[in-house]
Amino acid sequence: MPFEFDTAIQATALGEGRYNTPIIDGWDINGNANGGYLMAIAANAMRKECERSHPVSITMHYLSPGPAGPAETRCEVVKAGRRLATVTGSISRDGREIARAIGTFGEVDAALGPHSVTSAPPQMPAFEDCPSRPSGGQQVGLSSRLDMRLHPDDVGFATDEPNGVALVRGYFVFKDNRPVDTIGLLLAADAFPPVIFNLFGMKGWVPTIEMTVHVRAVPVPGPIACVFTSRISQGGYWEEDGELWDASGTCVAMSRQLALAPLAAD
Amino acid sequence: MPFEFDTAIQATALGEGRYNTPIIDGWDINGNANGGYLMAIAANAMRKECERSHPVSITMHYLSPGPAGPAETRCEVVKAGRRLATVTGSISRDGREIARAIGTFGEVDAALGPHSVTSAPPQMPAFEDCPSRPSGGQQVGLSSRLDMRLHPDDVGFATDEPNGVALVRGYFVFKDNRPVDTIGLLLAADAFPPVIFNLFGMKGWVPTIEMTVHVRAVPVPGPIACVFTSRISQGGYWEEDGELWDASGTCVAMSRQLALAPLAAD
Repeated sequence: MPFEFDTAIQATALGEGRYNTPIIDGWDINGNANGGYLMAIAANAMRKECERSHPVSITMHYLSPGPAGPAETRCEVVKAGRRLATVTGSISRDGREIARAIGTFGEVDAALGPHSVTSAPPQMPAFEDCPSRPSGGQQVGLSSRLDMRLHPDDVGFATDEPNGVALVRGYFVFKDNRPVDTIGLLLAADAFPPVIFNLFGMKGWVPTIEMTVHVRAVPVPGPIACVFTSRISQGGYWEEDGELWDASGTCVAMSRQLALAPLAAD
Repeated sequence: MPFEFDTAIQATALGEGRYNTPIIDGWDINGNANGGYLMAIAANAMRKECERSHPVSITMHYLSPGPAGPAETRCEVVKAGRRLATVTGSISRDGREIARAIGTFGEVDAALGPHSVTSAPPQMPAFEDCPSRPSGGQQVGLSSRLDMRLHPDDVGFATDEPNGVALVRGYFVFKDNRPVDTIGLLLAADAFPPVIFNLFGMKGWVPTIEMTVHVRAVPVPGPIACVFTSRISQGGYWEEDGELWDASGTCVAMSRQLALAPLAAD
């Protein structure tokens, strides 16, 4: 039996940069594919197209919601260099483009290069002492596939008791124990509840405009400890910054997205 | 007399999404166009193509160095929605693509929406008490166009006395007093010395792989106070995070880039 996520991101080459990449049910929020899942689908096709191992930096702009169903990803290798390759990817569903990505792919080996880390993994209780991600009334299809645990202090949004702090900390694990690889990190970067739910409460849908993920290391086996924050909500937009850490205490990814603010909180 | 920057980013429509966008001398580091300048060139053509006012989120991947000379930017409107438009832009020089961008464009009005700001402008001495950006032995063409002032504590890199802190704070002003608009912010996001020069010293060229800028407000007149940091250098890569603040104390942009680390620091 293949792991569920491998089935969900499969990319079957159709030639000329086109890949059959169906959007699978159960990787959604309220019926629409999670943004990190869409990024993972595109990245898997893009890395095949350029024949590189890992996304190093990938950006996706979200154009339309993506319910489950047949879909195609069209890739273009913009530049294939010795060390890095830059590739675009476009996911279409029923002939309508729903997301456009650009990424640079290559090797990732955290042991190389000058080393300096001034950030640290989130202070978390043990995995088994953290509650599962509450749905807060949403249909979190992702919860059927993922074991997402939240820091006990960061679940107030779900019972309409936001603590006023734009912070969500949690663990990310595939329920079927698939190891989290660098493509899995792209899903992890967008799988947790929006941090502004703890700031303003759950006031509506907060669609992502754009998300960028930098993959900084290949994770060792074990849960990914994630911390998401936001500093600036204004103008109808807010950013969410993520740091993802593996079980050995290595930062494996940094993420940032810009999303629309819930106007009901005006 | 037009302002220098307006001449430098001019985009003359050639039809079918193509724009004549020459790369002008004097907006460079060591003879190659600054990455923020290239982003500004592309963004100016892209906003014309989609007929929107401001870049909201824009990402550029850098493919090859761009010395001054004739260049063309090719734009494609991916989606034109009611509120936002998503556009790609590709800069070519001598038929070779040197940078590829994707961005979402629209209105930016910081007064709208729910408001929460937990960050603050950098603590800076007055503009006139800050030294001009030292060249540190580089040919900083940008310094002919910009009055960049640095925090006195952040200039150690230039005299080979890095203080071991990945931090650069400074002011950004056009020498000819052109107001800094939302396109100017894209230049400001990449105009300062790389923060890792204060961490490891100036050990070599640190080319940007990818930069993303979120424009969060239209600046009021006056210097832009900028702060750049980095948390993770590993694997031959490092990220630089920027916050840009206008003279009224509003965060006008957030930036993040991923760059190659100077391998000489191994």
